[in-house]
Amino acid sequence: MLNRTYDDQVCSVARALETVGERWTLLIIRDALRGVRRFDDFQHRLGIARNVLANRLERLVESEILERRLYSEHPPRYEYRLTDRGRDLYPVVFSLMRWGDRYAASDGPPLLLRHRDCGGTPDDHRICTKCGQPLEARDIETRPGPGLAA
Amino acid sequence: MLNRTYDDQVCSVARALETVGERWTLLIIRDALRGVRRFDDFQHRLGIARNVLANRLERLVESEILERRLYSEHPPRYEYRLTDRGRDLYPVVFSLMRWGDRYAASDGPPLLLRHRDCGGTPDDHRICTKCGQPLEARDIETRPGPGLAA
Repeated sequence: MLNRTYDDQVCSVARALETVGERWTLLIIRDALRGVRRFDDFQHRLGIARNVLANRLERLVESEILERRLYSEHPPRYEYRLTDRGRDLYPVVFSLMRWGDRYAASDGPPLLLRHRDCGGTPDDHRICTKCGQPLEARDIETRPGPGLAA
Repeated sequence: MLNRTYDDQVCSVARALETVGERWTLLIIRDALRGVRRFDDFQHRLGIARNVLANRLERLVESEILERRLYSEHPPRYEYRLTDRGRDLYPVVFSLMRWGDRYAASDGPPLLLRHRDCGGTPDDHRICTKCGQPLEARDIETRPGPGLAA
């Protein structure tokens, strides 16, 4: 249990939520962490209105969480890639996923996580339970879990 | 970087956000983790309308994240305490705070975290950098940081 704080106007949790405290925004970041880059792919996975998605992507580019890059010149097409600042949100997405797996996945986790190098599983601290390595996003791969089939 | 997923309708991140994906809700949980229990204290710290706060607290009780307990009989007064399910959201709040400290705290972290037992600081994995212990909410205490005075 943490101590009481002093002045809630100055709080990094509140500041972080100003940028990512909106459900679609975190789901866009979740998908970007899983390798999604293109507008139509985000749209297809999220099933949100195109204007809402365009607005959220634009805000994420302004916040320097995503970077917009031209990947085709004729016709001009852009993709969205996570910046370092965006990739550093992985622990937020990871911890939401763990909590959801524990309390909101009655059929078991939809996705299982595995340390790419040794096949071990990450614990709640993102430490590999097999080899002890602290894991970052790039070290972790996913496979379908029991909750997915259900 | 995670692999692409299979079916986004079944996702623990999305499920978790259904419960806590609203900015006030996570700030209420943040304050509860710091020891706040009473309606007026939440209201004073958050500065939100009383009816909005009452609604969010009620939803958190329904989601079994907070528990409502009578602490005075005359007049009847209730306080809100985190359940285990609520306390398990600590990693979400911790990782949002770390991200905010890194990218949205130009004057430095408003709060510094310290391992209660040995005085070490937690790393991004909530492991004590001094003694190596994996830290839970109860192991971590806060003190004012450089960003608070500013």
